[in-house]
Amino acid sequence: MKNQITNALSDFFFEYETPRQVLVRNRRVGVVCRLIQLGVLAYIIGWVFIYEKGYQSTDTAVSSVFSKIKGVGYTNVNGTERVWDVADYVFPSQGDSSFVIMTNYIITEGQKMGKCAELPGKHNCSSDADCEGGSFKRTGHGEMTGVCVKANKTCEVVAWCPVEDDHNIPDPPLLVSAEDFTLFIKNSVTFPLFGVTRSNLVEGIDAAYISKCLYDPEEAPLCPIFRLGDIVKMSGFNFETIAKMGGAIGIVVDWTCNLDLDLKHCKPKYNFHGLYGNPSETDKVRASVGYNFRYAKHYLEDKIAKRTLFKVFGIRIDIIVQSLARKFDIIPTLTAIGSGVGIFGVATVVCDLVLLYLLPKREFYKNMKFKYTDTHEQVRSTRLMPDMFCNISVNTGWEQRAV
Amino acid sequence: MKNQITNALSDFFFEYETPRQVLVRNRRVGVVCRLIQLGVLAYIIGWVFIYEKGYQSTDTAVSSVFSKIKGVGYTNVNGTERVWDVADYVFPSQGDSSFVIMTNYIITEGQKMGKCAELPGKHNCSSDADCEGGSFKRTGHGEMTGVCVKANKTCEVVAWCPVEDDHNIPDPPLLVSAEDFTLFIKNSVTFPLFGVTRSNLVEGIDAAYISKCLYDPEEAPLCPIFRLGDIVKMSGFNFETIAKMGGAIGIVVDWTCNLDLDLKHCKPKYNFHGLYGNPSETDKVRASVGYNFRYAKHYLEDKIAKRTLFKVFGIRIDIIVQSLARKFDIIPTLTAIGSGVGIFGVATVVCDLVLLYLLPKREFYKNMKFKYTDTHEQVRSTRLMPDMFCNISVNTGWEQRAV
Amino acid sequence: MKNQITNALSDFFFEYETPRQVLVRNRRVGVVCRLIQLGVLAYIIGWVFIYEKGYQSTDTAVSSVFSKIKGVGYTNVNGTERVWDVADYVFPSQGDSSFVIMTNYIITEGQKMGKCAELPGKHNCSSDADCEGGSFKRTGHGEMTGVCVKANKTCEVVAWCPVEDDHNIPDPPLLVSAEDFTLFIKNSVTFPLFGVTRSNLVEGIDAAYISKCLYDPEEAPLCPIFRLGDIVKMSGFNFETIAKMGGAIGIVVDWTCNLDLDLKHCKPKYNFHGLYGNPSETDKVRASVGYNFRYAKHYLEDKIAKRTLFKVFGIRIDIIVQSLARKFDIIPTLTAIGSGVGIFGVATVVCDLVLLYLLPKREFYKNMKFKYTDTHEQVRSTRLMPDMFCNISVNTGWEQRAV
Repeated sequence: MKNQITNALSDFFFEYETPRQVLVRNRRVGVVCRLIQLGVLAYIIGWVFIYEKGYQSTDTAVSSVFSKIKGVGYTNVNGTERVWDVADYVFPSQGDSSFVIMTNYIITEGQKMGKCAELPGKHNCSSDADCEGGSFKRTGHGEMTGVCVKANKTCEVVAWCPVEDDHNIPDPPLLVSAEDFTLFIKNSVTFPLFGVTRSNLVEGIDAAYISKCLYDPEEAPLCPIFRLGDIVKMSGFNFETIAKMGGAIGIVVDWTCNLDLDLKHCKPKYNFHGLYGNPSETDKVRASVGYNFRYAKHYLEDKIAKRTLFKVFGIRIDIIVQSLARKFDIIPTLTAIGSGVGIFGVATVVCDLVLLYLLPKREFYKNMKFKYTDTHEQVRSTRLMPDMFCNISVNTGWEQRAV
Repeated sequence: MKNQITNALSDFFFEYETPRQVLVRNRRVGVVCRLIQLGVLAYIIGWVFIYEKGYQSTDTAVSSVFSKIKGVGYTNVNGTERVWDVADYVFPSQGDSSFVIMTNYIITEGQKMGKCAELPGKHNCSSDADCEGGSFKRTGHGEMTGVCVKANKTCEVVAWCPVEDDHNIPDPPLLVSAEDFTLFIKNSVTFPLFGVTRSNLVEGIDAAYISKCLYDPEEAPLCPIFRLGDIVKMSGFNFETIAKMGGAIGIVVDWTCNLDLDLKHCKPKYNFHGLYGNPSETDKVRASVGYNFRYAKHYLEDKIAKRTLFKVFGIRIDIIVQSLARKFDIIPTLTAIGSGVGIFGVATVVCDLVLLYLLPKREFYKNMKFKYTDTHEQVRSTRLMPDMFCNISVNTGWEQRAV
Repeated sequence: MKNQITNALSDFFFEYETPRQVLVRNRRVGVVCRLIQLGVLAYIIGWVFIYEKGYQSTDTAVSSVFSKIKGVGYTNVNGTERVWDVADYVFPSQGDSSFVIMTNYIITEGQKMGKCAELPGKHNCSSDADCEGGSFKRTGHGEMTGVCVKANKTCEVVAWCPVEDDHNIPDPPLLVSAEDFTLFIKNSVTFPLFGVTRSNLVEGIDAAYISKCLYDPEEAPLCPIFRLGDIVKMSGFNFETIAKMGGAIGIVVDWTCNLDLDLKHCKPKYNFHGLYGNPSETDKVRASVGYNFRYAKHYLEDKIAKRTLFKVFGIRIDIIVQSLARKFDIIPTLTAIGSGVGIFGVATVVCDLVLLYLLPKREFYKNMKFKYTDTHEQVRSTRLMPDMFCNISVNTGWEQRAV
């Protein structure tokens, strides 16, 4: 038993199996197949490894964004002068990654709860029968009372009165001075797989630089301070158009890093594009135009609950962090090599097909390639050929020795 | 030297190596091994390529969501009638992807900073000694002064007074009319790898359609306007239950696109599910029930800072964008083919094991398969067999010729 | 025709091709090559399968986070006592995944729109010529009127007056009692590929446990209630420092789940780290220090629009959900096996190179390995050797039989 195990181990460790190859010396086949093999090698090394970086594993980042706007705007509506600074025109105030800068608004002051007439349009009526009491219209400001207000020829509703009249959107936009506001973005990304953390305030950016710089795609591509007018232009919008009806812009902070290089080369790139459709599409075509929301400031006047309603049109900015880090890793490398060897095998199959089925001497090559095991059968097929001498000896045992 | 290089290149380009194969003509082995090989082929073509789409590379989207609610609600609390429109019941106002629609509330009006008695419950006392001055209780409304208010039999605290009494949650919910509110979702997704941008306002959806449609899973699956009551029902909740204590619902906008097809087939699917636990679990079992937060409106009354505190119960809606785009790519295709060839190799190993260790004629097959290289050794092992004629000639040199 | 098809099918199904192998019995080569093969096997089984879990496919989660703060703070500024509870110091109120807890502030009360002098510093002037009317300075509070206010020796601006003086940040921080505030996190994750949903309120956490527990990395690692002071300490910050200037902290909820095990093992781990730079860096080095934003409360006083401006310094908390679920899947398993077989092929190529180009008996082995097909060519190269007996017979046809 012990001897058997020793023999088995010895056989295993002291032997080496290598496939027996047939070496075909034929110019045409040789050149074609070598070219196929070189093509597969070029694909593996050139495309998989160099172009697509198949030797690296990838990771996306976990990120955090902080924003801050600076700038002051002025409006003069019907003689009322107003100052708008950052605490007044940014929603929300905290500096999230997603916020709205108000560029235009419709203000309805001193609304009080009560009954009043709807706006002309969808709520027209000529008598009380046209206004179904207790029901809502989808675009209505409140529940209808069932009364038709003769003076306005519209239905009466229970709502915050007077109802908002949003038919006339101010043109030019009230806060068109928002074009000069500046946005400061602070962004931190962490690639958990590689344990790397980066901030968009890269090497070379200090407090002195920040206090003076302004982002420019060529001159100052790493300055984290952006002028709102520049952001709008780089997104392909016209400022006055987007400021009137509102719009949405995405600022993409793109972190594409090759962590096999020095960490200082891992820097962000800023891209700007409009969300919700091509800016060149006409307004008639687009199903939903602009960006707006309603916002109310409540107060007490003479102990009565009142509110000032704002229909805010603004530029909605979404700061989106896109990230992809790559670093050399042994597993994707060996997987790519292993698959490449498999493709080589496919190349061999293709060449074999040519060799065995297409060439003039294919029968000859078939016999070179295959070793047949026909036990106790008369070998009478047309595949019998002169070079079968060795195989014939198998079939007939020792007799041939006497030959 | 030059001749050597020429010879080497000529040898390289004009030769072709192909493995020599042993062709075993045995019915049992043939059928079994062909079936194994066909099985591997079926796995590669059927499962990897067709079912799992292994020939395509994938990408997830960068997305932006904008929401808008419409609807008006009415409450009558202790004779006080209130109108609630979108500027009053949605938090926050800007139309983010995550927001709360208030459906119920507890209002504590006219709070003023000062000292007052806590609520009965965790703060009961019979004498000043029970109230530790300067300390907090985790559920308390403020710092205890150390005085026990005899009238209420609870500790006195420094807080906004009177403290909020949230023991009785209004039932039925005050804003149960929220069931008819409508939600409009505008969503834009971009797949950066493929450079494709889509909006959920797909072809066929224009302003006219939006003004009338209402989402229905069968009749109008692409309408981006949703009725709140429908959303709650499709998530598996009962509206009155969730409106009373609040709850959280996720609206998943699912973009699963095959970009090998025409772009117009890339459309979103909407799914709705409750967050934080199965709606059918009883309230006693769940550790944390409902959704609420506190919100205050500050004002000045007779130059005194006052506030109205709202404990808001509402439906928290998270619009979550899930995305997966696939497109044909040469690398995953060739990787799948390469790995498949490798699996074929495993199939061959399995069949070889059967051939060489299990069949009756295994010794014969071993000799067919292996060519032994024993240099200057007496061949006396039991592997010596008649078909070794050719190999014997190796060992003994030219002598055999004379035979 | 029918016979041909039958023959072809019969040939296909009843045959089995296996590569013919050369068995080299050489101790050195055998040991080296077996070690290389065992190394490749150990890499595949040990590293790819066991360590990197190459037999599993992965998925990341879609998640939703809800937060709630509890705690009361007190300030006494210039004799004015204030109570700050959760409705006053958390921005925003709704309990999102990203929020700010105010820890310090500069308050400018009773601002009114008008003209007033700027702060000393960047806006100094000695005469009207120094102040360019109609222009803005980037750090200014409003548009300059062109007048130099002699009393203050600074330019006059149109702004909310008096302008905010933020040179002196309160030290110690006003709401340093925020250290004892508690944060409750409710988090739900769904892995769409595997159809698994989990909540951070895992088995064993019920309402009773939540009402008493406090998170501790060792004693109570699953308690979802965190003390703010602990969060700051675990992030590496000092509370008083971060409370004065503000700061940003990320709470990472890490879901790394092996779904081949029982679902109850899928639990979250909480990590805390500062965002935007190493807390140990000195303030002089960092380009942008702290975290603050401005926030205004508007009111009417004697029918004049007034506001109270807050420059809020606070701890910005981002609750970030990181997730990775793994589950056994047949495709990555077979891909890993297939690539591994490919790597085995590379090992074979390396050993062949040793065998055919480095060993003393390489010519012998070359002849063993290769079967040459030279048709109608005189075999005169030095590769001719005694064991070519069988091959010679190919070239000369039947004549050799007569030997």
